[in-house]
Parts: sequence; C-alpha cells; structure tokens
Amino acid sequence: MKNRNPSIKYLFEPRSIAIIGASHNTNKIGYLVVENILLGGYAGRVYPVNPKGGQILGHPVYKSVESIGDSVDVACVAVPAKTVFDAIKSCAEKKIKFVIIISSGFSEVGNISEERRIVSYARAHGMRIVGPNVFGIYSSSVLLNATFGPRDIKPGNVAIVTQSGAIGVAMIGKTKIEDIGLSTIISVGNKSDISEVDLLDYLISHKASKVILMYIEGIEAGEKLVKVLKMTTRKKPVLVIKSGRSKRGALAAASHTGSLAGEDKVFDDIAKQCGVIRAESIQEALDWCKFLANSPTPKGENTVIVTNGGGLGVLAADACEKYSVHLYDDSQNLKKTFSGAMPEFGSAKNPVDLTGEATAEDYDYALGAALRNRNIHSIACLSCETAVFDADEFTRIVEKRYADYKSAKPIVFSLFGGDKVETCMTSLKKSNIPVFPEVYEATSFLGAIYSHYRNRVHPAGTIETANIDTPHIESVINKAREDGRRFLLSHEAQSIIRAAGIPTPRSYIAHNLDEAANCAEGIGYPVVMKVTSKDIIHKSDVGGVALDLENKDEVIDAYEAILHNCRAHRPDALVEGMEVSEMIEPGIETIVGARRDRGFGPIVMFGLGGIYVEILRDISFRAFPLSREEVMNMISEIHSYPLFLGVRGGEKKDIDAMAGTIIKVGTVLQQCKGISDIEINPLVVYDYGEGVKAVDVRILLSES
Amino acid sequence: MKNRNPSIKYLFEPRSIAIIGASHNTNKIGYLVVENILLGGYAGRVYPVNPKGGQILGHPVYKSVESIGDSVDVACVAVPAKTVFDAIKSCAEKKIKFVIIISSGFSEVGNISEERRIVSYARAHGMRIVGPNVFGIYSSSVLLNATFGPRDIKPGNVAIVTQSGAIGVAMIGKTKIEDIGLSTIISVGNKSDISEVDLLDYLISHKASKVILMYIEGIEAGEKLVKVLKMTTRKKPVLVIKSGRSKRGALAAASHTGSLAGEDKVFDDIAKQCGVIRAESIQEALDWCKFLANSPTPKGENTVIVTNGGGLGVLAADACEKYSVHLYDDSQNLKKTFSGAMPEFGSAKNPVDLTGEATAEDYDYALGAALRNRNIHSIACLSCETAVFDADEFTRIVEKRYADYKSAKPIVFSLFGGDKVETCMTSLKKSNIPVFPEVYEATSFLGAIYSHYRNRVHPAGTIETANIDTPHIESVINKAREDGRRFLLSHEAQSIIRAAGIPTPRSYIAHNLDEAANCAEGIGYPVVMKVTSKDIIHKSDVGGVALDLENKDEVIDAYEAILHNCRAHRPDALVEGMEVSEMIEPGIETIVGARRDRGFGPIVMFGLGGIYVEILRDISFRAFPLSREEVMNMISEIHSYPLFLGVRGGEKKDIDAMAGTIIKVGTVLQQCKGISDIEINPLVVYDYGEGVKAVDVRILLSES
Repeated sequence: MKNRNPSIKYLFEPRSIAIIGASHNTNKIGYLVVENILLGGYAGRVYPVNPKGGQILGHPVYKSVESIGDSVDVACVAVPAKTVFDAIKSCAEKKIKFVIIISSGFSEVGNISEERRIVSYARAHGMRIVGPNVFGIYSSSVLLNATFGPRDIKPGNVAIVTQSGAIGVAMIGKTKIEDIGLSTIISVGNKSDISEVDLLDYLISHKASKVILMYIEGIEAGEKLVKVLKMTTRKKPVLVIKSGRSKRGALAAASHTGSLAGEDKVFDDIAKQCGVIRAESIQEALDWCKFLANSPTPKGENTVIVTNGGGLGVLAADACEKYSVHLYDDSQNLKKTFSGAMPEFGSAKNPVDLTGEATAEDYDYALGAALRNRNIHSIACLSCETAVFDADEFTRIVEKRYADYKSAKPIVFSLFGGDKVETCMTSLKKSNIPVFPEVYEATSFLGAIYSHYRNRVHPAGTIETANIDTPHIESVINKAREDGRRFLLSHEAQSIIRAAGIPTPRSYIAHNLDEAANCAEGIGYPVVMKVTSKDIIHKSDVGGVALDLENKDEVIDAYEAILHNCRAHRPDALVEGMEVSEMIEPGIETIVGARRDRGFGPIVMFGLGGIYVEILRDISFRAFPLSREEVMNMISEIHSYPLFLGVRGGEKKDIDAMAGTIIKVGTVLQQCKGISDIEINPLVVYDYGEGVKAVDVRILLSES
Repeated sequence: MKNRNPSIKYLFEPRSIAIIGASHNTNKIGYLVVENILLGGYAGRVYPVNPKGGQILGHPVYKSVESIGDSVDVACVAVPAKTVFDAIKSCAEKKIKFVIIISSGFSEVGNISEERRIVSYARAHGMRIVGPNVFGIYSSSVLLNATFGPRDIKPGNVAIVTQSGAIGVAMIGKTKIEDIGLSTIISVGNKSDISEVDLLDYLISHKASKVILMYIEGIEAGEKLVKVLKMTTRKKPVLVIKSGRSKRGALAAASHTGSLAGEDKVFDDIAKQCGVIRAESIQEALDWCKFLANSPTPKGENTVIVTNGGGLGVLAADACEKYSVHLYDDSQNLKKTFSGAMPEFGSAKNPVDLTGEATAEDYDYALGAALRNRNIHSIACLSCETAVFDADEFTRIVEKRYADYKSAKPIVFSLFGGDKVETCMTSLKKSNIPVFPEVYEATSFLGAIYSHYRNRVHPAGTIETANIDTPHIESVINKAREDGRRFLLSHEAQSIIRAAGIPTPRSYIAHNLDEAANCAEGIGYPVVMKVTSKDIIHKSDVGGVALDLENKDEVIDAYEAILHNCRAHRPDALVEGMEVSEMIEPGIETIVGARRDRGFGPIVMFGLGGIYVEILRDISFRAFPLSREEVMNMISEIHSYPLFLGVRGGEKKDIDAMAGTIIKVGTVLQQCKGISDIEINPLVVYDYGEGVKAVDVRILLSES
C-alpha cells in the first residue's frame, strides 16, 4: 500500500477527531480527553468510540471506528497496550491520517517489538503515529485540547514540544498560573514515528508560534534535528531544557527513558551550533518564554544598566558577563545621556547609578534618555525599594515608557524590596512587561534575547566538505574487513589520513642498508630509524631505535648499530627491515576526531592533545557537516585557545590548517560509512603557514 | 584618654539611644529613624536631639546631647556630613559607647580625611563607630528598629550584615514579604571602624541568630575576618552574597565602593576555606536563610530523591551534582524501602520513581519509609501535578510527615504544576516547610544544608607553619634594600627559598677550569654549564651553554668550547666565570606562590605551572596560615589534580612535598614582613618520595 505521507497540518488543525477508548468513568484518561475536547471549545467534529456506546456529556459515543459515518483526520488511542494494535488496524481501515497513542506500556517498559509492529503497520498504511506514552495535543488554532491535562489553556504564542508527558501536563498548569499563552503543546513520548523534527518542520512557519520550547531527554535522528533546528532558530527563538547534564543525571535519564544518554558536552556544543538557547531549569525557560514572544529584536549589542543602588548594579554587571550581555562603554555619551537624572555623586558610568535618592521622575528621565539614544540598544532597569520609592508613580512611568518603545527596544526590569515593590511588580506583570524579582533572572532573559539576536544577524555560512580519495579509503577498509578486523593498523590509518589530504610524517620500510640510506635522503634529515620485527615489541629496550640522524653517515652507523644490538639482545628475532621516518618537530599537540554519535550522527571533536585531553577535557564538539565559521567557533571556544594565538612571545599557530583538518576528518567519516571512529592524537600544530602533522591516528570500523 | 573598648553587646542591646539630627519633617531620615524606634516597640529610653526642641510623635526632643539627663549607650547621627564631627565630640563628652553615623558624604565620595579624623577622635575617646553611610540597626532582642527602612520587622533567627545600605533597606522589605524573621540587620557601610569582624564576634554566640547572611562588596581586615569566619561557620551557617564576581562587575564594584576589588577566585577559594556558603543571587541566599534556621543537621551524606515523574528526577539528579549532594546508592536497600509504594514499572533506583500514578497515599508510604530508614539521611521529595494529584491530601500527608521528622532529618520539597500545586505550596510555606517551585532551588537548599554539615563534621585541623631560617632571609632582604632594590636577584631568591627548606638546583660559579671540574664532581653528573658575563645576555646564541655533561672529560671539553665560542662571537665580552648546575630531571611543572592580598593579608597560591598558568588559570588560593588538611584541599581542587595521582601508568607524585612547599612559602611571607610576593614557577614535582625542586623563583619586597 502506498504511503500517503499526510501533511502534518492535519495533526495540528484536524477537521475531525476520534477518541478510541472514550470512557464513561470520569476518573479515566479516556473520559478526561473527551471532556477536554468537548468543553475546550474545539470547532471540529468529535467522535468518541467505545463498544458500549451511550453518551458522554450528552455527546453520542460510537461503538466502533467503522461506524463513524465521516472521514476522520486524527484519532487519540487510550486503550490498554495489548489492544492498541487492533485500534490501529481500524484506524488504517478508516484512512485516518494521524494516530496519537496515549496508552503506555511499550518501549518505555521494554516492549519494543509491539511498538515497532504498530509503527510499521501504520506507516505501511499511510498513517503517522504520535507516541506511544503521551498526554495528547493542544492546538490553539482550532481550540483543540485533546489532552488529559488541565482544561482551560490560554491561547498564545508559545509552542511547547515535550518528551516527558508528566512534565508536559504539569507545564500546562504552570503556564496557566504564569499567564503564558500557548499556540500548541504536544508530547512526543517514545517518538516511535513522529519526533521533534516533524514538529519543528511545521512550527518553523507556523505564524502563531513565536517561541518554541522543547523539553528533551534523549536525542534521536539528530542529523535531521540539527538541520531543522539551524533553520528554525534563524526565524524564531528555540529554547531547550535538556535534563541529564550531570553524570548521575545522565544515568538516571538512561534508566528512565531506556535510551542511552550521550555526553552532555556534545549536546551542549551542538545546541550552541544550532542556535538553540539552553535553559538550566524549567522556571528559567518559562520566564524566557513568557516575554520572548513579545520582545523586539535589539538593533545592536549595547546594553545599559540603570539602577538606584550600586550593589544591584554590580550584581547585574556580574550577571551580564555570565549571560554574554555586552555593556555599553562610551563614557562621554553615557554622561551626556544620564547626567540630568542624578545628583553629583551619582555615576554615569555603566551601570548608571541614579543613587538612592532617585525618584520615579528621575527614572522617567533616565529611561526616556536611554530609549531615545540610538547608541543604546537595550536597557536593564533595576530598583531597590528606598524611602522615596513611589510604587504607583513608578508603575505609571514604566508602563508609559514600555508602551512607547515595546516594539523598538528591549527593556527588562528587576525590582527588589517589600510590599511596595510587590505591588508594582504585580501591576507590571499584568501589563506583560518583563519584570523579575532578581537581577540574575532579568539579565538571563536579556541574554536569551541576545542569543536570538546573534542567530539572526550572524551569517549562516556555507557548508564545507573536503576533497578526499574515497576509492582508496574504501579499499583500505575492505582489506581490513577481509582480515576480519574492526580496527585499522597504524600504516592503514595513516594512509587514510593522507588520502584525506592531511599531512603525516613520511615513513618507509627499508630492507637493506642501501634502501635505508635512500629513504633517508628522500625524506630529508634529520630522520628516525626503528627496527621492524614482529619478535621485538619494546624496540628501545634492545637498542632498536636511533633518533635525530643528521646525515647519510649517521644513518649507516645507526643501521649497523641497531642490527648489532638486536642480534646481541635478541639473537632469535627475525628482523624484517628498518622503518626510516621523518623526525617530528615540536609544536602544539591537539586532538582532532570524528565519530558517529548515537544521537547526532557524524560529529567532529577538537581539543588540546596529549595527557591534557583526559584530565582537562578541554574539547569541543560539532555536528558534521558544518561551515568554516562553525569550525572556527569550535576551535576558539576551548579554554586553551589563546595558545594558538601566540603567547609569551610565541608565534601565531596555523589555525587554518587545524580547521581544514577538522573538515577533512569529518568528510571521511561522513562519506565512508564503514568508519565509526577517527582520532588523531596528537595532531601537531605549527606556526602560521607551516601547517599541521597527524602523528598518531586511530581508526575503528563500523559494525558491518 | 583611655580606650574603654565598650562591649559590642551595648550596640545590639542598648538601654538607651539618642538620635542626633531627629527631624520634625516626616520625609527626612532623622524623622523616620525616630518614628521606627518609637513605634517599633523598643523597650529602652529614646532621646531625639534637635536644637529646635519640641516633640516628635508626642515624645520630647532634646535641644542638645548634653541636655539629656541620663547615660546613653548608642547614638544615631543623621546630620549633614560637615557637622558630624561636632556631633561626635558631643557624644564623646556624654561617654556614649557606640555611634552609628547614618550620614553619607565621606570616604564613599572621596572624603577620606574627614572620616579618618572622626574615627581617630572617637577611638581616642573610647567610642566605636558604625558607618558612616549606613541605614542603622535592627535588633530583635530589644525590639529596636533604629533604621529608616520599613517599620514592622518580624523577629526571628536570621542575622543580616550588609555593606550596602540600599540593598539592606530593600532586604528588610523583602524578608517581610517572604516571612523571614530577623534577629538583627545592620549595615557596615564605609566600615571606618566596626567591620564584619566585630559583628561576627558578637553573632557567633548570639543564641537568637541561627543563620548569618552577609552581603559583601569588598574585603578589609581579611586576616581577622578569616579567623572569625572559620570559628563561626563551625557553629552556625554563614551565607555570603559577594558581588563583583565578573571582571566587569569587579570594576563596577571598585567604582561604587571606592575600594579595589580583589580577584574573585581568591574570594571564592577563601570563602570555601572558611566554610562560608556563597550564594550567587540575593534570592538564592534568602531562600536558604528562610529554612536553614529551622533545618536539622543531617546524620550523613545519603540523599534520596522521591518523584512521580522521571523527568523531574533527572533534573534533580543534575542539580545534586551541581550542588554537591550525594545520592544514596544501595539498590537493595532502596528496593526494600520503596517497592511497596510503586507499580511494577516504577523505579526503586535513586531517583526513586513512584510514576505518574502515585497518589498522596503512595507518597505517604514512600516518605514514611525514607524517614524511618537510618541509612537515608535526607530526602528531596518532588511531584509533578498529575490527573491524580490531590492538593489537600498531599498537603496533609506532607505536613504530618514533616512535623514528625523536622528535628531529625532534612527533607525538601519541589512541586511543579498549576493551580492545585500552587494551593498546596502556599499551605506548606505557611507551615514553614521548605518547598520550592523549582527542583534546582530545592536542591541548592539541600546543598547549603550539606555545606554546613561538612563544616561541622570535618575536623578543623591544626595550623601548621614551617621552620625557616629567618635571620638569613632578613639579611638577604636588608642587602637588597641597601642596594635600593625592591626585587631580589635570582641567587638571592634561591637562597631565601633554601633557607625555607625548599630544594633548589645546586649551582656554583667556577672561575677556572679546575674549579669547574670540581663543582661538577661535587654536584654529580649530568651537569649544565653556562657562561657568566654581564656582556652576554643571550647565552645560547653565542654558544655559551652546554647541556647534559656526563663526566669530567665532557666538562673540560665544554669549558674550552664555551670559552672559544665566546671569544669568537663576542671578543670584547668580559667572561666572569662559568655557572655549573645540576641538570633538572623532568617532572610535573607547578606554580607555588604567596603574596599579601589587599583584602585578605597573606595568601598562598598553587596551580599547574608553565604556560598553562596564564591560559588555563588552573590555580587555587588559601589564606595563610592554614592546616595540612586545608593545603590538601587546595591542591586537590585544581582541575589537573589527577595528574599528581598518576595517569596513563605514571607514578603518583610527591603531593606531601608540594604541600610542604606551600606551607614553607606561606611561612616566609608571614614571618618576613619585608617580602610582598614570592612565586616559584616552575616548582618541578617528582614521583612520590622524590620531592620537588624550585627551579625559578621570583621575590619582590614590600614598599618602605
């Protein structure tokens, strides 16, 4: 049967909905969903289904799906897990487009096969599945509340996609008491078919959804997710709460969702790459959501803090550094702008301190001046409750100033104090003005505004891949496979790296003295010589290594000395030849790698090499493919980055060659599916223009 | 005149108080303070002073301090800055014990000399000064509200000491609406005389103060502060908000307070050393205060998370790692304890997941089991609002369980959801049960409980100093001073380091070939030889250095070669001799230093050496003197610490010798006041038992 691939629009705007497992028992999910749909104001046609028939809230109940004499866009299934498959069959028969399986008892408790059977059947019959193990969907455009959560959801501009049903249901309640309007909320549960990717694909151009909030526990189909996220975040802010940040949390998440949680640093870095704004806590994310939907995009990075207490100003400056908010610094302009609003001992430096004597009128003057000033792009307005604080007057002037500029310039407020401040904040919140009790919260919101601003103004960059000798690489892989190996030998790995255009130390095996001398001449001095023998593992111990050979005579002497030493120490060893190699000049040791991540697919890694990789974990990750700009961001965000810019009189290093190497390694992994892991450690980096050298390479193959 | 040094008890429990600058104008500070004292319920005698006389709120106003026919313990001064000195004189005349100078216009605006004049006069007349530039004092024991902040302060167990008046006044209002009871709140302002040290000295044994919250902008008298903080934190929790964490914030703080802000890392590390619990934001600190005063100390580190949503459990596990809360891990015991409270698909692993089906009764069972279990020492109880959430029932069971165990076992709650959860939280908060809307907040509070727990259970340790040859060190310092230098030459610094018992490379100057050979024999091979000549700066460039000389013949050859090279390249250079030194074996390069911090006095520093010092700033600080345990904490908290435990098959390093070196360097700085800075970089650390070697030493002398 042909897969119809129904448009996802029908999921969010169904003309009709069936509830299979509609219940007469008011405590059951099968009742609650019907009740929410019927009383929630849904404009479409509703078909509760229960073999017993009868009525729910005066609405007829159908004895079977077949008996519905109408086409149905969406079905919610809330029957026990073991009868879900039968329900799916009847949905297919009815040519229903989307089935939301609310029922639990599938992959989340290990029942993977039944879940797979359901999805294959559905997909084969042109149906798509949401869930299982979800709370349903709310969609403001048709006023559909097909969930078993709270009833009266306020329509608005925030779209929520959650992996956790429990957190989703609680969020419906929480957004209600926080007065956050929703365009939609949907849980993806086990993501057996429909995942965040499908939903973002819809939400990216869904006008009513101005902000998207995602609660994520584990990543699947990460390659597609990265792609759609990159597109979405250029259009609207995407906030993410991802639990499992810590080792212990990741373990708990793995045990809770049944999926293996990846390293959090990988998620964090790729979220950054995608322009996603990550919140630490649910409260932080909701704070951002509430106001981001209505916040204007700033015209630049200059923020001014206005305060009546130096202490609050300092705390806000601390918070600005934490949340990457840039403080405006032009002292002359600041002085000109604000000196009219403060006594002589005030400070027109940023944070601008109007002093504890500042009245509402002084704030009015200062805010007016800041809002009119084109060099100031956003404002954090703080106030301590003082003896002269007039709540009514302060509320009035803030409301006025905010109304005049709300579409032009972001302004956030934080008020600290007792009753009077509380009164003021309650009023301002009612007017949807971003006001927070704590300067850190106000500033973190400003940080979220700027994260989105930077997504919009920074060019996307062009995806870059390298030219690599794929046929050669494939032949090396095939040879290893023929040998039954899943790892490559050192020379095989080196040859793949060379086929990707990455320089490696030149090295040859010489079988006699003449060959050794010729190799050395070919490589250029100095060279290193090592005995090659399966019987000799610890070459240095038997005098089988000679370093720093500077001319032909030294090569000849060394050749004979090594042979002599080996014969003396290991008379029974079969000497196959001598490896003659280029001496590696010292440089900065880095690590460059690529691997297939379970969640994200091909990812690349860069960091400080040597033993510091393990201890300092000074590394960064990105999803592949990527642009040159993204590679440069990846390189510049490790702590040791200043090393590459030249410190203590050192030269600037060849960052371009490092970036090129990352792209080459990523390209190999992406194009040669047989490879699962590549790690160059160390990749020695030289002064600018002198390139890099891949000294040690480790390559693993995929499970066939 | 003799300094009477009045007991600070009179500041907090005055029998009488005068208000100099009492005003009839109800908008003036001089009125507000009188009003707060008179209407706030103060039990002592009140003497408003104003040359105009009259009455305030029916209370007689005295025309002068002299005209008060009674002894006065405390005076508040609220007159213009220029008349404060006269007021102080009249206070001295009256033998008043403490003067609180509310007036501003002193060192905070650069008027340092007048402030100094006032303090010297006061101290010479046995008076002590609070301020200037403060809001006053509230003290619950005598119901004294001598502030110009809000009136009705709830008496309670939290003592607040704040440097910022504005934040202090706002905090009075904020604690009121958050229902936090205060034992005292006092601002130290410019700290011209009385500082946090004096106040802590009182609060440490002040029974009503169970938690101390400090808002700090800059540190002075840090040596005494460290000492008193160490003692205080072993008895009661001390929370600190220190603004100026960031570079920008530190600059703003410096400009705001007029004092130089030190590096935040120094403050952070020394706060840790003192057992202080540092909050990032004011809200976080107040959240902790609210409940810490009534929270029992746990009996151990085992925490259990109980939740009805896996997602919340994972977020809490993340938060536990962030706030150093240890999750209990005995799966058998957990299973035995909790399996009765959950369906089969629940998880008795920690976080314990009762699943979304959990009712209030299930929570009751689980909480009861956890509270009774002696292996579980604290509980984080989380709940998402579900369809089965019963707010009344949940509130009832939580109140019951909490009441039964509130003096025995810490338990914190976090509830997430809508109206029902809000109702429940409001009730629980009224009963003073620690409940938070966000799992991160609940966990951060548990983290604060455990920080204090660790202060109580970890032994204080004995302060350790080293035996050093002080006379020799002083003679080296004196010689440099005679030369007019504030830096020491390399050999002088080395000799001080040796006088402190720290090994340095052996090194001698030879003036002829025989001497060179003898030096080498004395040192033991291999040795290094370098030409000594004021005329030759870049010794390597002229062939003036020979490394790795392994026997007498090589020493003789090298001596002649160097002489030859120098004559060839720099025929005009005067060769004074040859430096013959021990070859430094490679080891881990660290940095060890000590300096006089403007705020804290003598501090020591330890970190990874070489170029990583500058780039990775992987360093830690402590105030000196300290115990061996504190040194070990200092060493183990740098990121690179695993390097010293042996990685990649390396040997464990000589951590004891490192610790000893830190103590020796600290002792030198502490005992020899002439030294301001010592830096050993690198201090090379060898395998365990093989010690350390101070390769390069830089010592600077103090001014004067």
